[in-house]
Amino acid sequence: MVKYVYAFEEGKAGMKQLLGGKGANLAEMTNMGIPVPPGFTITTEVCDLYNKSKGNYPEEVDRQVDEQLKKLEKKMNARFGDAENPLLVSVRSGAAVSMPGMMDTVLNLGLNDKSVEGFIKKTGNPRFVYDAYRRLINMFGDVVMGVDHHHFESILTQLKEEKGVEFDVNLEAEDWKKAVEEYKKVVKKVAGKEFPQEPKIQLKMAIDAVFSSWGSKRAIAYRQIHDIRGLLGTAVNVQTMVFGNMGTNSGTGVAFTRNPSTGDNHFYGEYLINAQGEDVVAGIRTPEPIDHLKKKFPKIYAELEGIYKKLEQHYKEMEDIEFTFQEGKLYMLQTRTGKRTAMAALKIAVDMVKEGLIDKKTAILRVQPKQLEQLMHKQLDPKAKEKANVIGKGLPASPGAAVGKAAFTADDAVKMKEAGEKVILVRTETSPEDIQGMNSAEGILTARGGMTSHAAVVARGMGKCCVAGCGDITVDESKRQFKAKDIVIKEGEWITLDGTEGKVFQGKIDTMDPQLSGDFGTFIGWADAYRRLGVKTNADTPKDCQKARGFGAKGVGLCRTEHMFFEGNRIKAVREMILAETEEERKKAINKLLPYQKEDFVGIFEAMSGLPVTIRLLDPPLHEFLPKEEKDIKEIAKEMKVSPEHLKGVIDSLHEFNPMLGFRGSRLGIIYPEIYEMQARAIIEAAIEVNKKGKEAIPQIMIPLIGVVNEAKDLHARIKRVADDVIKTSNARLKYKIGTMIELPRACIVADQLAKELEFFSFGTNDLTQTTYGLSRDDAGKFIPKYIELGIFEKDPFQVLDAEGVGGLMKICIEKARKANPKIELGICGEHGGDPESVETSHKLGLDYVSCSPFRVPIARLAAAHAVLKEEAAKK
Amino acid sequence: MVKYVYAFEEGKAGMKQLLGGKGANLAEMTNMGIPVPPGFTITTEVCDLYNKSKGNYPEEVDRQVDEQLKKLEKKMNARFGDAENPLLVSVRSGAAVSMPGMMDTVLNLGLNDKSVEGFIKKTGNPRFVYDAYRRLINMFGDVVMGVDHHHFESILTQLKEEKGVEFDVNLEAEDWKKAVEEYKKVVKKVAGKEFPQEPKIQLKMAIDAVFSSWGSKRAIAYRQIHDIRGLLGTAVNVQTMVFGNMGTNSGTGVAFTRNPSTGDNHFYGEYLINAQGEDVVAGIRTPEPIDHLKKKFPKIYAELEGIYKKLEQHYKEMEDIEFTFQEGKLYMLQTRTGKRTAMAALKIAVDMVKEGLIDKKTAILRVQPKQLEQLMHKQLDPKAKEKANVIGKGLPASPGAAVGKAAFTADDAVKMKEAGEKVILVRTETSPEDIQGMNSAEGILTARGGMTSHAAVVARGMGKCCVAGCGDITVDESKRQFKAKDIVIKEGEWITLDGTEGKVFQGKIDTMDPQLSGDFGTFIGWADAYRRLGVKTNADTPKDCQKARGFGAKGVGLCRTEHMFFEGNRIKAVREMILAETEEERKKAINKLLPYQKEDFVGIFEAMSGLPVTIRLLDPPLHEFLPKEEKDIKEIAKEMKVSPEHLKGVIDSLHEFNPMLGFRGSRLGIIYPEIYEMQARAIIEAAIEVNKKGKEAIPQIMIPLIGVVNEAKDLHARIKRVADDVIKTSNARLKYKIGTMIELPRACIVADQLAKELEFFSFGTNDLTQTTYGLSRDDAGKFIPKYIELGIFEKDPFQVLDAEGVGGLMKICIEKARKANPKIELGICGEHGGDPESVETSHKLGLDYVSCSPFRVPIARLAAAHAVLKEEAAKK
Repeated sequence: MVKYVYAFEEGKAGMKQLLGGKGANLAEMTNMGIPVPPGFTITTEVCDLYNKSKGNYPEEVDRQVDEQLKKLEKKMNARFGDAENPLLVSVRSGAAVSMPGMMDTVLNLGLNDKSVEGFIKKTGNPRFVYDAYRRLINMFGDVVMGVDHHHFESILTQLKEEKGVEFDVNLEAEDWKKAVEEYKKVVKKVAGKEFPQEPKIQLKMAIDAVFSSWGSKRAIAYRQIHDIRGLLGTAVNVQTMVFGNMGTNSGTGVAFTRNPSTGDNHFYGEYLINAQGEDVVAGIRTPEPIDHLKKKFPKIYAELEGIYKKLEQHYKEMEDIEFTFQEGKLYMLQTRTGKRTAMAALKIAVDMVKEGLIDKKTAILRVQPKQLEQLMHKQLDPKAKEKANVIGKGLPASPGAAVGKAAFTADDAVKMKEAGEKVILVRTETSPEDIQGMNSAEGILTARGGMTSHAAVVARGMGKCCVAGCGDITVDESKRQFKAKDIVIKEGEWITLDGTEGKVFQGKIDTMDPQLSGDFGTFIGWADAYRRLGVKTNADTPKDCQKARGFGAKGVGLCRTEHMFFEGNRIKAVREMILAETEEERKKAINKLLPYQKEDFVGIFEAMSGLPVTIRLLDPPLHEFLPKEEKDIKEIAKEMKVSPEHLKGVIDSLHEFNPMLGFRGSRLGIIYPEIYEMQARAIIEAAIEVNKKGKEAIPQIMIPLIGVVNEAKDLHARIKRVADDVIKTSNARLKYKIGTMIELPRACIVADQLAKELEFFSFGTNDLTQTTYGLSRDDAGKFIPKYIELGIFEKDPFQVLDAEGVGGLMKICIEKARKANPKIELGICGEHGGDPESVETSHKLGLDYVSCSPFRVPIARLAAAHAVLKEEAAKK
Repeated sequence: MVKYVYAFEEGKAGMKQLLGGKGANLAEMTNMGIPVPPGFTITTEVCDLYNKSKGNYPEEVDRQVDEQLKKLEKKMNARFGDAENPLLVSVRSGAAVSMPGMMDTVLNLGLNDKSVEGFIKKTGNPRFVYDAYRRLINMFGDVVMGVDHHHFESILTQLKEEKGVEFDVNLEAEDWKKAVEEYKKVVKKVAGKEFPQEPKIQLKMAIDAVFSSWGSKRAIAYRQIHDIRGLLGTAVNVQTMVFGNMGTNSGTGVAFTRNPSTGDNHFYGEYLINAQGEDVVAGIRTPEPIDHLKKKFPKIYAELEGIYKKLEQHYKEMEDIEFTFQEGKLYMLQTRTGKRTAMAALKIAVDMVKEGLIDKKTAILRVQPKQLEQLMHKQLDPKAKEKANVIGKGLPASPGAAVGKAAFTADDAVKMKEAGEKVILVRTETSPEDIQGMNSAEGILTARGGMTSHAAVVARGMGKCCVAGCGDITVDESKRQFKAKDIVIKEGEWITLDGTEGKVFQGKIDTMDPQLSGDFGTFIGWADAYRRLGVKTNADTPKDCQKARGFGAKGVGLCRTEHMFFEGNRIKAVREMILAETEEERKKAINKLLPYQKEDFVGIFEAMSGLPVTIRLLDPPLHEFLPKEEKDIKEIAKEMKVSPEHLKGVIDSLHEFNPMLGFRGSRLGIIYPEIYEMQARAIIEAAIEVNKKGKEAIPQIMIPLIGVVNEAKDLHARIKRVADDVIKTSNARLKYKIGTMIELPRACIVADQLAKELEFFSFGTNDLTQTTYGLSRDDAGKFIPKYIELGIFEKDPFQVLDAEGVGGLMKICIEKARKANPKIELGICGEHGGDPESVETSHKLGLDYVSCSPFRVPIARLAAAHAVLKEEAAKK
């Protein structure tokens, strides 16, 4: 005989799949001797049977419910539907995963025209009883019989009008009795059926309604959105009613065993006297802080204190609890793991280890890597935010908050910053030319582009707040303004960005500083002890290097050199190089950059002394260094001493239909070898100079976008020749490595050939995702949201590394590479390096390290530890 | 003891690798009893030793040379350097693969101040002997001692001036004797060494010079360009001199055993009386046709006839021969396989099978698939071409010839064609909007774009001549003209294109019609009997389908539907669809296209009755259907009854940074399902209509650009629902298949998942090459030529399928797909389908078919047969 129904004392916390979270925890508490109103749980299997059979489950279920009901009657010394001493119960849903508010509840079940009399006898409080009865009819009518709530609401409004009173509290027993009659009438009228008087029928109908609610549109959508899978259904909990609204000696409350915002080990919560749970939630009356309870009901508080401490000790977790006291007697109605902020999660994890409650592994798994992002950036003051005017919503491209005056060109941003202003750079989209403006800004807002658009990537690299692809706004750079529906924001007007939520606000909103508590260091140190993956950073400046080093990066996994080409006078030399008509001219121009590049690298090597620094040679197509607008072309032509027509001709000849698939990366190095030769020289000269100062530079030269082995052979030979020549001439000793980014599917297929020529591979997973999917990250933003909504993509592959497709290619690459060259170092330096799920994929693929932007280094460190611990757990 | 030197009678034709082509064939002829001046060959192994040891080969080589020389002296009854009866020899290079003109030759070796007297005694002709001696010094000085030819030339000029004569023929014995002295002086002056008098030293130096020439820049470059690999080096042939210039009873000639232009079985060649081989080549005197020899020297002709017939019977090939007759005695100096035109190759192959000379397999392998292209298109008259003015050179994008008046917009081209003009459409680049103009034009010329640019692909599909990416010209569409250096060609001026060579000519050049002889059908029928791969065609119109069917295509492998969207009124409906703001409006607009699409498909199904027709659903990004120019935007906005600003806004919102990686292919189908639903309906309705007429439509619906399995699931279900609904409503029976193009690396990696959902895959190797390499075909033209020059790419991967990288991914895909769905049909429909090497790769990969443009169908059929026969040969 299958057991379909469990009395609370028959279950335990480990039976969540069968009893649901609420049921399992009620059982656990019951068995711990904590006062829980008695009851029983109908299993999730019955829900499954209900849904599969379109409402027909075995009669055995009814039999077992009946049996449990009898035991309950006996235990409570009361009888269901009794005219003297009626048993009242609640019917509540509860799946294995919490789905708050998604399914239905019916209270006060067991009341009818007969038992209402018995209940009055028992309580001596007719007003309370009729109120309870009309609440039952309302909830039952709404949830079980499909009579919308507003029907009941309008009866109540009419009653109060007739009586000339404003609040429910002014209504008396007779009024509620009248309401009961009216409610019954409206049920019959709308549902076409009487409100059932037989309590057992009420119960069966309520149970079925809960099971049915599992398949409601609302619940299905909720599960899709929250990616909840593999559940049988919901359980149903039938529990003896207790009443917090039975007078001033009754009450109800919710609490956390520790502060969920700060993590302080201090009981935290609120309660209401003479109220039911729903009154707390509805927010009609303002609840009182939990410590008032200590003064007003010291006995209850003491008992509650004992219980919450016992629960924490038992669950070894911060718990979120619900309680009710009825005429001075305390009952626990729920316990579950409490949600918390990042700061709280960290503090609670560390504290609990110190208290000996949990071990370090458990502590590590208690903090979600993504949560750490909350700690890294400025935040908006939540209270100020509530009152502010949201004028647009875009992608949460780079977290944190920024407040500043709108600027519409990079130059304007620089000038305003120089004049002491705080600036938000607002652009339709950004390009590498905007880099100085972005640097001067507090935050960046763009109307176009995705999570990995230029603006987003650069902003995250800079640790600056960014809202990207905000389709709600239209930017008019020429008029120096943007429009968001009817609102026009002009240059110099204040706006505020919330990069964590992707929101744009009008005006100034107060911000709060981030706090990296001492707990952080302790905690992340524990994580480091478990992880196998190394964590490096993507950083282009000494400042970023220092920041990342502070966050625990063990080297630079990606230093892009193209940003350096835009600064100050350099861009002029770059343009001279592009406009050169002979190799001689080109060399002359490019060599002007040598001292600058060397200086850049000296700073970076110094900041990263003793750690490897991977420098990527020039990658973007040359047209990115030339102007686009007619006006700029004229200006720059004048500066370059060429005719605007000539410059335009060069720009036209460099135009590309698909720049992502164009003349860039190693292709530049092959066709214009002098560029990479100059860069190799600058790197090696810088390293030698740094070493002479007693520091240790460990350069790793990375060639971008290699697809065929001959590119690797040719460029490796060229770079090595220059490097060895510099070392020999300087009479120095220096070890360096030469490697490549793996960004092309073809590179993965011929990885064995490449691995024989090179010493390291770093997966550029942004570009590899683009080429593997045939999807431009700048263009895909238009349909990826719809793809996810339709379930075509489970996740945005530019945010979470696609383990199946891109990962499948990486696996081929890694196997071939390791077989051909067992010493090869393998890492990942795409934006995915800072995404926890992608870090886990990287771990499973057997990479040596991940590299990510400085602010994501702690996230990657924690995610890497999680990957190990999850793997361990899966093996058990 | 290694044998380094072989007398001619010791070798045979099969020893080409060791003796070189010339040496092996001289040996073969000697052993056949054909009169060959005696001699010997020094092996290619010695060349290898020479080059590896920087000029030092074993003394044993000298010993063996000496030994053979002695035998030669004995045989000829003459002695090397003798004052009475000297032996004279030639020294010629000859590798296993012919490298005409790339290495060096020295004639008359053995003459010196002493033997010159003996030679005069022997010949009684001092003028001839001194002329021979000065020729030796000239050649030896130039080839062996590094004294440039011009030194000798200026001495000769001076001599003639002194004597007051114009031609060499006017010089007498004394003059030549004087020349000999002057030549010796200049050798000493320039080389710093005397011309060596000792014949054995002459011989050794000449042999070394030939070996050394193998490593010359010129020879290395030649081997690179012609992809000649795996050879040890050149052999050296030392052969007794015979003289065709010993008077009017002597002569020399070259001939082919059959006509190399037409293939007629008729001896074909020319000869000169009293001349040496070099005189024929130099073109100073006009040679006479070989049949004159029959009249003038009937005995020699009869002997020659016997020899050439014997050679053909022996080699079972059309031979290219060289002969000399000295004082009435005939000698053969060379025989080798004769080069021939496509027409000749075909006729000779078929004739030789009929003559019982070769079997069908051999015949099939005698015709190169690429050669067939020559037969398929109009050609320029070679004589007219010689005189014409080449004004630009671009890519040979689509073969054939075209003559017409320049037009600079598609509209102009249409109008000019309607006015009865022949037109060449000249554009900077073409887009789908130009399709009507391209259709109206005789040929297409573009300044930008590669071998697989829009212009090139469409032109090949249409079988129209196209020169693409002609960087020599600058097109100014607004002025209706283009510039090629100083020449300006305006609208209406005549130009001529040679699509086979990629040349652009000023003015009109005469053309010739292609000829598909009866031999073609016979020959290709033989090939079909051997091939395993099916051959289908890429065709978008009934006309193309008929053409391809005539060429032997067994179905349509790719019918693109986007071109159909541009015709007549359709484009308006397409634009309405794009501008639609609700699903309802969009459906309304798209349904206007239904009757047109259905009509298109009816025509195609009828043309292809009984054969499968694979129709690809809409693929290009929507912005391709909208105007780009300000003027067109205004015009079309008016037509569409929207404001230009609104239209511009839509265009802006559809703009893509990398359209190749953008919102196209199945992504359109997912987001706007009504498009594919309309197309599926049109296809199925058309098929049913055609079947009702008693024909047989076999539709295969192909979804473009699938990357994730959910795209396949979603679209398969939608298309199937529509198709089954139409079939049911029509009360018809119809089988159809649903498949996808494989264009993305990710599709290859998850091919097992896709294969479970779909019935066929067709590799879109153009796009798959782009994504695998991360290379845009439209942009890569800028550096691919340089990449090939530098040896980074062996071949252009857009012309020849990359067997290693792209093929590697295809292999993964095919294995996964066949394992998951053994019934799946696999083919290729990229441009590679018509390239012979790519067809061979497709065969090796185990595909079921290739599909290519109509004019390439015969090429693919032959290439597929070659693939089988080569595989058979490799197994033996």
